[in-house]
This record gives sequence, structure tokens and C-alpha cells, in this order.
Amino acid sequence: MGTSSDHSPMVHQSWRGIQAIIIWFILLPIIGVSGGAKTRHFKWEVEYMFWSPDCVENVVMGINGEFPGPTIRAKAGDTVDVELTNKLSTEGVVIHWHGIRQFGTPWADGTASISQCVINPGETFHYRFKVDRAGTYFYHGHFGMQRSAGLYGSLIVEVGEEEREPFHYDGEFNLLLSDWWHQSVHNQEVGLSSNPFRWIGEPQTLLINGRGQYNCSMAANFRTPESSSSSSNTQYSQCKFRGNEQCAPHILRVNPNKTYRLRVASTTALASLNLAIGNHKMVVVEADGNYLQPFSVDDLDIYSGESYSVLITTDQDPSKNYWLSVGVRGRLPETPPGLAILNYKPTSASKLPISPPPVTPRWNDYGHSKAFSKKIFALMGSSKPPKSYERRIILLNTQNKINGYTKWAINNVSLALPPTPYLGSIKYGLKNAFDRNSPPENFDENYDVMSPPTNPNSTSGSGVYLLSFNTTVDVILQNANALSANVSEIHPWHLHGHDFWVLGYGEGKFSVKDEKKLNLKNPPLRNTAVIFPYGWTALRFVADNPGVWAFHCHIEPHLHMGMGVVFAEGVHHLNNIPNEALTCGLTGKMFLSKNN
Amino acid sequence: MGTSSDHSPMVHQSWRGIQAIIIWFILLPIIGVSGGAKTRHFKWEVEYMFWSPDCVENVVMGINGEFPGPTIRAKAGDTVDVELTNKLSTEGVVIHWHGIRQFGTPWADGTASISQCVINPGETFHYRFKVDRAGTYFYHGHFGMQRSAGLYGSLIVEVGEEEREPFHYDGEFNLLLSDWWHQSVHNQEVGLSSNPFRWIGEPQTLLINGRGQYNCSMAANFRTPESSSSSSNTQYSQCKFRGNEQCAPHILRVNPNKTYRLRVASTTALASLNLAIGNHKMVVVEADGNYLQPFSVDDLDIYSGESYSVLITTDQDPSKNYWLSVGVRGRLPETPPGLAILNYKPTSASKLPISPPPVTPRWNDYGHSKAFSKKIFALMGSSKPPKSYERRIILLNTQNKINGYTKWAINNVSLALPPTPYLGSIKYGLKNAFDRNSPPENFDENYDVMSPPTNPNSTSGSGVYLLSFNTTVDVILQNANALSANVSEIHPWHLHGHDFWVLGYGEGKFSVKDEKKLNLKNPPLRNTAVIFPYGWTALRFVADNPGVWAFHCHIEPHLHMGMGVVFAEGVHHLNNIPNEALTCGLTGKMFLSKNN
Repeated sequence: MGTSSDHSPMVHQSWRGIQAIIIWFILLPIIGVSGGAKTRHFKWEVEYMFWSPDCVENVVMGINGEFPGPTIRAKAGDTVDVELTNKLSTEGVVIHWHGIRQFGTPWADGTASISQCVINPGETFHYRFKVDRAGTYFYHGHFGMQRSAGLYGSLIVEVGEEEREPFHYDGEFNLLLSDWWHQSVHNQEVGLSSNPFRWIGEPQTLLINGRGQYNCSMAANFRTPESSSSSSNTQYSQCKFRGNEQCAPHILRVNPNKTYRLRVASTTALASLNLAIGNHKMVVVEADGNYLQPFSVDDLDIYSGESYSVLITTDQDPSKNYWLSVGVRGRLPETPPGLAILNYKPTSASKLPISPPPVTPRWNDYGHSKAFSKKIFALMGSSKPPKSYERRIILLNTQNKINGYTKWAINNVSLALPPTPYLGSIKYGLKNAFDRNSPPENFDENYDVMSPPTNPNSTSGSGVYLLSFNTTVDVILQNANALSANVSEIHPWHLHGHDFWVLGYGEGKFSVKDEKKLNLKNPPLRNTAVIFPYGWTALRFVADNPGVWAFHCHIEPHLHMGMGVVFAEGVHHLNNIPNEALTCGLTGKMFLSKNN
Repeated sequence: MGTSSDHSPMVHQSWRGIQAIIIWFILLPIIGVSGGAKTRHFKWEVEYMFWSPDCVENVVMGINGEFPGPTIRAKAGDTVDVELTNKLSTEGVVIHWHGIRQFGTPWADGTASISQCVINPGETFHYRFKVDRAGTYFYHGHFGMQRSAGLYGSLIVEVGEEEREPFHYDGEFNLLLSDWWHQSVHNQEVGLSSNPFRWIGEPQTLLINGRGQYNCSMAANFRTPESSSSSSNTQYSQCKFRGNEQCAPHILRVNPNKTYRLRVASTTALASLNLAIGNHKMVVVEADGNYLQPFSVDDLDIYSGESYSVLITTDQDPSKNYWLSVGVRGRLPETPPGLAILNYKPTSASKLPISPPPVTPRWNDYGHSKAFSKKIFALMGSSKPPKSYERRIILLNTQNKINGYTKWAINNVSLALPPTPYLGSIKYGLKNAFDRNSPPENFDENYDVMSPPTNPNSTSGSGVYLLSFNTTVDVILQNANALSANVSEIHPWHLHGHDFWVLGYGEGKFSVKDEKKLNLKNPPLRNTAVIFPYGWTALRFVADNPGVWAFHCHIEPHLHMGMGVVFAEGVHHLNNIPNEALTCGLTGKMFLSKNN
């Protein structure tokens, strides 16, 4: 296994290259070594900067002057130590390490209001955590909608020194997918919190490694047969690049007749995506840091919060190049496909593919999506779920109104995060930090999930599901009709601090007889699972990680509108929460008052 | 004395009117009474909202759904208690009570990094302070550039029960002046902090009580003889209003043959202003909460951070209305005048004045500005300055470069505010909270203030001028040439926690022989004083207010670029700083570590 270079004659990122070299020499001496495992130190500064992710200048949230943020590469067993300084003017910041379970370090999970106080402007916080398992991960902001503002990057964990992957590859590429709006995230937030409600709309551009093209297309000469007129490429002019533009497309430069691993992760704010590569099949081998029973596909569905590794074999005509195309699923697309180029050496990267980009399946072909999801099984020999659950929580997903404001609610409670992080307020038994009543475990059995709510009025709350330590918990995510008739949306739910087994998907309302159909034999372990329109998804996990953990729809505006819940387990086992994680809100005041 | 209504047939703010009535009935029971003085309680929520201050929709920072924020009215001796909740998504917030000296309550001064920790999203802070002196004040954000985002309002202190003003008036109006940009403050901040530097440019609109008109004019039929073509009104179409628009002009509805007090305050981010009323002279009677020796003017210069009361007599033809016009001074104007209407009863407010709006003096007629400033003297019988100073600090104002970034510096130090508020770090003797070396008291005697700096490189710092308690301090503000040749700008300097006596203005570099010309007889007390291009301004104050106090250019982007200093005095006398003011940064950690 080797690592191929992403460099191509078309993309001369000379200054970033030099920066990378300088940073490498700076970092070399500070990679601490202990046994086989290393501590990998990073010194990051978060700040806004002007950037042109899609050839239109805008303000993005960057790290050390880069967008997306720097890629972290480590080996399983290493400790990652990120010294994060907030260089924003007036905003706090946190970073969540998506997919890292944070065993023993729940305060490093980077979720505002849950695992830590936000890092205020000018302040520094150390994220120090072990990456215990190889896989494809990423990181992103988890305060307000800062992820949508561009605060994200990749976190790649390679196998440890003594380990090897259960598949072979000759090189790898990393593809971090996102979506991009021209309206500022601040204004998006105001619109979502306004009455009348203002929806953010569809993204202007899809980005691959932070690069997209607005109002022009690399593949302007091809007509895509998508139903939506705006996703036809013929209306756009041809994008021209010198190669050093911030929006120049990503090039995957490959040798013929080799096998490459593509690490694909989606940190979209909204869009469900589908990825395909012209003339190349993909073998799916990893999801969310867990090995899968390999299966071959022409295209890959990927929802926000998910990651996959796929293997491709470069067995096509090496005198040509091929499109890698990303399109929108599950919502009527108004966003043109995101494109990258699979470039066979020694063919020039500037030679555009002669075949059109692969076509994303029709946006509402949910059969296609469900078929893909149902192909995903754990690699033989993977850990199996406990045979039975000790607690079952059924979570109804509904769109609601609270005092005229549009919200999402779970069992009729829209999550309103408190200013004091739960980790501290639960640890120290603070009485007034959040709603002390546990939220409902189920919903009215007469609720009709196929119709808009008869009474859309809901309430907001900050209650917690307290899970007994080490118990097995089943969660049934139940989808329903939104406020408008005949609308039910896709929601990718992401769990912090754990993976869960995805036991099954079903249509309509979950019922006792569905239990028998659940897969307890080889369900995949994931940290993110989707609910399909009008359907349910069954998950199982063991509450074995002391801490407080968010479980929420990974669509950024949906979480902003209250679509999440909070689990807490074994918090009394934690005796070493760092002070700096709790210097705010009621925990901060508690410590102050003890001294005065 | 009575209070006239601002209501007019043209401005039917029915919902706001009803809101005001509701709020009044809610507030009635919670105005605490103790002796003659009352405690006035306010419950405020700060949040972003859509608003059209100049007929163009934008996002503004509002309070309780209002822009500008609610007007506070109190009587001298009252206590104001504002319970401020931060409803922003990711930004901290503080509010500074501009002109209130905060004797004994320096933690309520509302300056981030100086007097308190910022109020984080979801948190509440109580500002509780005494308004000990009648006058025209205002309040505004003092974190990042949140004032520019619209976080401001008026604070009017009437004379106490047993007092009376030294002048008569029959009614009063309140005019809060500001300037407005269409670019978001977040983006403005990024531009100012970028290399290459991006200046914010001139404002799109001048606002009077939060109301202006972009791209159209009330007075479209008149040609103004201003040199800048853009300030001619003829290029604009006529603004049409039903009267209930957020950008409908402010109407001053007056009875004939009465005397009115106009309370004028400027919280502009950038613009120096001049105000005039067609056919009406103004008698200036108050500045920054201090009575003046009355003097009559045709127009009033007002710089950001200043307030004035002027008296007008409604002795003109009552069958006509008259323009009140506000224009830009000191910078080549690219912003049309802000307009309001002086409406004589019973004439309809919708009858536009037949004479053109008064013309602002030529922007660079500094002689006019200086003549105005030199007319300002304290009312006979006002307190006089000590005859001599015990410490003199000379502050050279220069524009500089730090690592390629454009900054403003004082004696070659550009202020970089620390994350831990000085009030706590000085009180508790924290070692690493800010630069322990005192900044320079003077500058190189060979420095040529008439030319660009020969070496523009500067340094940033967070040092403090520690003032011995109760000593008399003179500050000489020395202006100089900016980075470009033949450029020297106006800077209005504002001192927190004190008023100062303005002892004099002069041209060129201040020298010992200028001392004799200082006015120790009847200098006005102010909290804001301007330095004119290439000139100096001499101030004197007594360091008699225990606390830490900002002294800075009140131009918002200039402060953002480092144009300020910090004074501290008598901090050891403070034994009752509320905990919640210090729950952040190193003071927060100090208290936590004491417990662990």
C-alpha cells in the first residue's frame, strides 16, 4: 500500500505546497513517540477569511489559512492533540471529531452545550484524544451552524504498525464532500429563526475537497437527463482554469491497472449525495470506520455524516480521463453536479473526459437508495450486537410550530440546548441547568405518520435520556409526514460517542411484528444512519462510554431547528474532566461561588 | 416642560405603539421606588433580525425586536437595572452605557476584555448602575464591531425631582444618529483584518433614529451645492412612504412659537456629522451630560461618541415644514444626507418643505469645525479642573503596518485586547493575562507628525497605563500623518468611567509653549473629544473612579484596528466585583483551579 500524490500539472498550488513543507518541518520535532503509538500535535487557529470555494468570493471559516481545514493523518492507537485557538472576532467555537468515540475523553467531543464550554475569542483549548481504530473520519464545527460556514476537514486514521487492512490497494485519495451557499450562515440562521420562516433553499454549489464551480461547468458540453432543468450542464459556460484557483477541480491522478482506495466523507449541511465515476465500478469496503462485507456498485449514496471507503481499479483506457460526479439525492435538485477528474497517467489532466459525467439517479428514486442501504453488512467476523435490548426508545420525527416558529421535534419536544454544558451540569448535579424531566420514550400510538400533524404545536425542551451504564439500548427512528401534505424528508441521524448496529429499515409505522425482521446476524456498525421518507430505522448500541452524547439529524438547519436528543451514561465514572471544559455558565458560577 | 409626541399622520407605527403600551403596563409594577429615586428594570433580549433601516432589507442586531434598541428614560439618581439575555447563535455580547461613569460599578461598563466577560449565547447578565446626572446618553455594543451591526439605543436621564435644568423648553425630541452599511459587519471585520487590507468604505446611508433612505431621497427635487456629485439629491428618485415603513423618516411634530430641546447623539461607526434645520438656529446647551455656556449656531458638528442638546424656537411660518438634514464631515462624502422633517402643527407632515434641505459645510472645511469646537465652554459655575497635572501622557496617533496588516497604533503600540478582562486580572494580580510593561508615555521627539511614518512597522500590545488613584492626569492626543502622504484624519476619542476637561486644541506638534494657552478657566467637561488633522488636543481628568477604563477612538473600525489604550486606577479598592462578570479566561480558570 502506498499513498499516491494528488498533484497534477493542472493544479499548481505552489504556495500551499511550500506552506505544507514548512509546516511539515515545524511539526517533525513535535510528533512525540511512545512505544508504537505517537502523539500527533497540531496547532490550529480558526478564523474567517476571504475564499472562492466555487469561484465566487465569499467569507469562509478556515483553519491556519486553509479551507477545508488541514487533513489530520494518524495511525490507530495514536493520540491526537489539537491546540485550538479561536481567532474569530465575536463568536465562540468548538470542533467535533466525527466518528471518534472519545472513550475516556468525552470532554473532547467538541459539542457546544453538551461536552464543553465554547472556546471564546482569543482563548485556546486542547483537544487530546486517542484514535483507537483505523478508518475514514472528519471533523467539523458543532456550534450554531459553523459547519455550514466551512469549519471542517478530514481525519484519516491508518491501521497501526502491527495491523493490516482486510483489502489491498496501491494508493488512496481523500474526497471530502460538502455543499455551499452564497448567503452567509449568519443570515441563514436568522431566517431559520424568523417568523415567517425563511428556508435556506438548495445549495449553490457542491464542493469536493472544498472546490466547486458556480455558474459554469467543467462538463458544459454534455446534457444530463435529470428532470430538473437546472441540473443540465448545457446551460453553463465552460469553466476555464489555470490550475491554481481555489475553485480549480480536484484531480485524482492514477497509474493504469492499479487499485485505489477512495475515502469519501460527506459533511454537507443539507444535501444527500450520490457519487459515481465514469466507466469505473466501486467496491464498498468501509463505512464510518467499520469494515464492510465488500460489495460492488455503480454509484454510491452518501448522506451527511457518513463516510465510506471504496476501491476502484484503473482498468480503463489510459489515454482518456474520466469524470467523478456528485449529485443531489432526496430533494429536487437545483444544484449542478460537483465534478472531479480521474486522470490516468501519463495523460494530461487538462484533457477533459470525452464521455459525459455519470448521471445521478433520479432524486426521488428512493428504491435505489434503499437498495443501496440494504446491501451494507458488516465484514464477516465483525462484532455482533447483543441478542436483546434492555431499553427501547422510539423517536418520532416531526416538523412542528412553536409560537408560530417552524421547528423539528422528537416525540413533540424540539431540542433547545442550554448554555451550561450537560457534561458539567450532570457531573455536578446542578439543578437548574436543564429540564430535569426525561423526554418521552415513545409517541401516541394513534399518531398518523402518513399525514401532516393534526395539531402541529410543539414545545421546546432540554431534557436528557439518562441511560443506565452498560445497558443495551434500541432506538427506533420513526419518520413521519412534515407540515406540508405528501412531504416526508430524509434525515441522517448521527450518534456521538458510539457506533450503533443498524438492525433494519422499514416502511410506515414501526410495529412489534417488525422486530422479527431485524438483522442481528451481520448488521453494520455505523455512527450515522438515515431514515427514509415515511419509514423507520432500528438501531442498537451499548451505553458503555461514560459521557453525554448528542444524537441528532446531521442536516445542519434541522439540528438548528431542534432535531436532536441528548443521551447521558455513566457520568459519575468521570473524575478527570479538565477545568477549562467547564469554565462557563452555571458550572463556572458554581466554582466561583465556592470561593467567595 | 412637557414631552411632545413624535406621532404624526405620516408615521402610523401602530404595532410598535401597541407594543409600547403593553410593555408600559408590564413595566409599571416593576419600577421599584426608594425615596425619590427609583430602580428601573428592563428585560432585554439581543438578537439578529431582518430589518430595513434604509428601505433595503438587511440583518440588524436588535433588542426585544426593536431597532434601534428601546430608549431608556430615567431620572438623575435612579438605578437602571437591565437584565440582558443573549439570544444570538454563536456570538457573545456586552452593552456599554456611553457617558455613564459607573462610579462604584466598573463591572457594569460593558466593555469586552476590559470590564467583564462577554455574555455567551443563552446567558443573562444584570447591568445595574446609577445614573447620577441628568443628560443625553446612549448605549451600544462594545465587542467586536457589534455597534456597527445596529446594537445601540438612547439613554435619557432627566433631572431629579428636586432639580431643574438651567434652561427652559416646552417639549423635546430625541435624535440618535448613525451610519449604515449594506455589507455585513462580519465581512467588514474580515476585510479590516485581511492582508491585503480591505477598507469598509463610506456608509451607504445615514440614519436618524434608525431610519434612512437608500437610493431615493425625500428631497429629490433640490440640488445641493456640495462638491461631491453623489451628495446631490437630484440623481435620486423621490421616496414614497405610507408612513409605517421601517425606513419612513422621523417626524418632529411641533407647535408654533414654542421652544424644543433636541437631544442629539451620534453613534456612527465612522462618519463625522453636521446637523442643521432649515430656517432655524440652534442654541447649544448641553454636551455629553454637561451643561454648556449657551451659544447659537446655524449648524452643529457632532462626532461619533458625542451628544448635544440644542434648543430651537418654532418661530417660522407654521404653514410650512422644514428639513432637518445631517451630512458627512471630514471625509469626502459618498453618502447622501440623512433627512427628517420638522412639522409645524397643524400642517400635514406629508407636506414636504418647499425650501431645500440645509447644506452641510464643505467636508474638508476644518476651519468651520474648529471654530465650532472652540465655541464650547462650560456653563458658568461648573466644576473647574485642578490647576496642575500630576502625570502627563502624550499619545501619538499613527497608522502602521504589523506583518503586512494595516493597523492604528498609539505611541507605536496597536491595542490587542486580551481574552481575560483586565478588571479581574488586575484585581487578582494574574501574571499572564496581559503585557505587564506599561505602554510608552510619549513618542520620539524627532517624529515628524506632518509626514507618513519613515518606518511604518509597529507592534501590538495589551499593556495598561496604571494611574495612581485620585491623581490628576493630562493626556495630549497628538495627531499625525497616516500611511499615505497628505492624509491626516479626524479621530473622536472617548474615555470610559470619566469626563475630562477639554483644555485646548492646537496645530502641529504639541510643545511646552502650548501649555500656556490651555484653558483652565471654563473648559467644557466631555467624555469624547476630537483631534483634528495634524493637530493636538489637550485633556485633563482626575483618576478618581476605581476600575479599568478604555480610552479609544470611537470610530468602530479604528478601534478594531488597535486605536485605543487602557487606563486602570484604584482597582484594589474594589471588593464587590460580581462573580458573573469574571467567569471566563484566566480569572475563570483561577477560581476553578482553587477548587480542584
